[in-house]
Amino acid sequence: MPIPAYLYDKIASSITKLIEEGTYRPGDRIPSIRKMSKQQGVSVSTILQAYLVLENRGIIEARPQAGYFVRIPEFDRLPEPERSSPSADPSHVGLHQLMMIMLRDALDPNLVQLGAAMPNIEFLPTKRLNRITSRLARQSGEEAHQYEIPPGLKELRLQIAKRSLRYGCHFSPDDIIITSGGVEAIDLCLNTVCNPGDIVAIESPMYFGTLQTLEVRGLRTLEIPTHQRDGMDLDALRFAIKQNKIKAILVISNFNNPLGSCIPDEKKKELAALAATYQIPIIENDVSGELYFADKRPSTIKAYDEAGLVMLCSSFSKDISPALRVGWVAAGQYKSEIEWRKFTANAATATLPQMVIAEFLESGGYDYHLRQLRREYARNVKLLSQAVKNYFPPETRVSRPTGGFVLWVQLPGKIDALDLYKVALENDITITPGHLFSPTNQFSNFIRLNAAVWTLPIERAVEKLGEILYGMMGIERG
Amino acid sequence: MPIPAYLYDKIASSITKLIEEGTYRPGDRIPSIRKMSKQQGVSVSTILQAYLVLENRGIIEARPQAGYFVRIPEFDRLPEPERSSPSADPSHVGLHQLMMIMLRDALDPNLVQLGAAMPNIEFLPTKRLNRITSRLARQSGEEAHQYEIPPGLKELRLQIAKRSLRYGCHFSPDDIIITSGGVEAIDLCLNTVCNPGDIVAIESPMYFGTLQTLEVRGLRTLEIPTHQRDGMDLDALRFAIKQNKIKAILVISNFNNPLGSCIPDEKKKELAALAATYQIPIIENDVSGELYFADKRPSTIKAYDEAGLVMLCSSFSKDISPALRVGWVAAGQYKSEIEWRKFTANAATATLPQMVIAEFLESGGYDYHLRQLRREYARNVKLLSQAVKNYFPPETRVSRPTGGFVLWVQLPGKIDALDLYKVALENDITITPGHLFSPTNQFSNFIRLNAAVWTLPIERAVEKLGEILYGMMGIERG
Repeated sequence: MPIPAYLYDKIASSITKLIEEGTYRPGDRIPSIRKMSKQQGVSVSTILQAYLVLENRGIIEARPQAGYFVRIPEFDRLPEPERSSPSADPSHVGLHQLMMIMLRDALDPNLVQLGAAMPNIEFLPTKRLNRITSRLARQSGEEAHQYEIPPGLKELRLQIAKRSLRYGCHFSPDDIIITSGGVEAIDLCLNTVCNPGDIVAIESPMYFGTLQTLEVRGLRTLEIPTHQRDGMDLDALRFAIKQNKIKAILVISNFNNPLGSCIPDEKKKELAALAATYQIPIIENDVSGELYFADKRPSTIKAYDEAGLVMLCSSFSKDISPALRVGWVAAGQYKSEIEWRKFTANAATATLPQMVIAEFLESGGYDYHLRQLRREYARNVKLLSQAVKNYFPPETRVSRPTGGFVLWVQLPGKIDALDLYKVALENDITITPGHLFSPTNQFSNFIRLNAAVWTLPIERAVEKLGEILYGMMGIERG
Repeated sequence: MPIPAYLYDKIASSITKLIEEGTYRPGDRIPSIRKMSKQQGVSVSTILQAYLVLENRGIIEARPQAGYFVRIPEFDRLPEPERSSPSADPSHVGLHQLMMIMLRDALDPNLVQLGAAMPNIEFLPTKRLNRITSRLARQSGEEAHQYEIPPGLKELRLQIAKRSLRYGCHFSPDDIIITSGGVEAIDLCLNTVCNPGDIVAIESPMYFGTLQTLEVRGLRTLEIPTHQRDGMDLDALRFAIKQNKIKAILVISNFNNPLGSCIPDEKKKELAALAATYQIPIIENDVSGELYFADKRPSTIKAYDEAGLVMLCSSFSKDISPALRVGWVAAGQYKSEIEWRKFTANAATATLPQMVIAEFLESGGYDYHLRQLRREYARNVKLLSQAVKNYFPPETRVSRPTGGFVLWVQLPGKIDALDLYKVALENDITITPGHLFSPTNQFSNFIRLNAAVWTLPIERAVEKLGEILYGMMGIERG
């Protein structure tokens, strides 16, 4: 006997009303069919029918093994930021006091955090990691207290090597050196191929932490124009190589922070070939490579590296745990020198965190976890983009990342991001001003927003930022 | 009723025989009174009487709360090594391939390890650390997965500060920066006060890992003559400062590795004053400061530092766990720059190891553990010294450390330590040749021996080394 339409229509209408009133917000999970059936005192099949109606109307969406969610409406997106066109002269980096202040702010629970690019800890497998840690500590005896000098824990290197086919490489455990996070991997590579005063070609914009590492080491940077979709401009790079003695090329190949760019496979191949032609090592940062929103893991430049010139750096800080501080580098011809440098810098990476990550990779459901994580970040990036579109003045431009969890926002009306930063902080909101992402200050009217977390306070903070911007521009909100 | 003498004398004689035959060896614990009473089928008071007799005869010794042990006989010690007299010219460091080979060898379970200065893992509180780790992992939730950006975990800095009165300092938690082990602390200090090409005054000999760190950073070293008892020669240092532009002074103030020297308090004070006079920063390595054999914790140079020029570096690698990789620096006027550099090098030290150490310091019986550890190392250093005296040719000289767990041995007859190293390795024995401890090769007829572990295979290895030496010298064993 079919379920009468008035029954499930009534249910569907009341859910629609809850959504319109904001009780359930875009991206929220709504109660399961069974639960709703109990709540409403109607049959499971009536609720199922109501949900199907809502799904057809585009109000909710089903996600396999996860339940029903309020659909995030498609929206007219803002235009993307303009391509960078930095100056062609090498320069030193600055601004480290500002960075240290922002790092402190990033840990202040009284501030709404849109600044630091911290992963959303609620999306990370902390419970499973804690169970693994507890078990290993109980079972391991002395193992966790013995040095794992470079290259690091064999089991972990094996697990990393096993996964390398996914991004076009076929590593053996001996190709991998474990580091204390991705930052250290990059620092070791820079120290291996550059001396103070040397020039490094970098994307523009570039993650400010890496710029600081370059500054500490006394290196000069040459910013190469970078497209917000497909990354570094190779013609510009080729030109720069001919004009300057470039000692290394440093790129975030997949989901540049802050730009969100992802270098297409063909271009990765071209970049590897270019490095081989000019015998210039590439330091490839792939820390966000697993956080893709499309169907397929993007490849790496390293996959096309026949000359052993590419040093592929990655870590588990974005997708497993930032605080275990475990990263790695596959360094081609520079391997033994990097091992030595790792030893002189801090002797070894802590053993227990390596054991925990190795065990999680082997038996913790890493792939299942990654599938969930990608869905969550894709959703939050979409929600934040939409909020920026809704609340910021119309001339705002925003990046359209296909992975990762940051947005790069070009402010309207040439507003200085540091001015916005200051007023935002007075309102207990953190943002990252674009000033930090270029040693030649190419991005003073840009901000980076962290899209990892989506909550009502975050949405209210975006609204507030929009208000501040309207105020700074002296215009009424349309 | 008194116990008849023939009864306990018989027991005492049979124990003496067991010791003479080698069933119980010097330093071994003998069965408890209760256990021996059961084994022999005689009363507890008879055994007690027998043990008192043996103690009076100097055959065994009682240790409070630990039981009875076979006494390590006093012996005529070998002369101490000669004071170093390095050249007065700065030089670069070399030999890194040899070091990396030796590091690998240090982890080879098929070799008898007298080379690397690894702590004796059996003396470390691994069980308690594992219990703490397991409990923290179960209870901590997300805490262990959140970044602890520099300066690091507050609770740990608090525990470190609390203990600082013991070595003459009165730190607040804000004075401390957590690092990934002591090696990193020293590297950060060097980078903060020196640029490539700068000259650093160091002890001679100096721990080779630090020499490698100096080499990696492109620094030059000036070796200052160093006494095997009271450390760096301050007159020579003063002279060197006048002759050269010295940018930093690097010393292991307590129990230099490999020399075992400990700078007396008055001299520490003088060194701090000298640094202030010439405004030269001191990097003070105190990683072994807790491993003293006498009654009192030695002080630090930092205790006398009124100018904020002393950077006191330490770690928990020698006394708690080498593989947790937790160290720290109290950096005086250089604090904020070191925080920044720490961030650019690897963002943060892993959080969980910091939590584990903080908890152990607070409630794990650290002081009780240290008391045991000091006794064990004092005993093993004595046993190894005695074995060297027994088995090596008579012209051998050996250091008399008052703390730590390494011996510095001057070989007889100008034998080259690298030759001995090679033959030893053919016999599955590792030693550390003196070549590694000086950039100008001052110590080619020295070796460093690790005294942390004392076992029968170790004793046999020392005997074998003696044989090899007699063979190399072409003389019969006397």
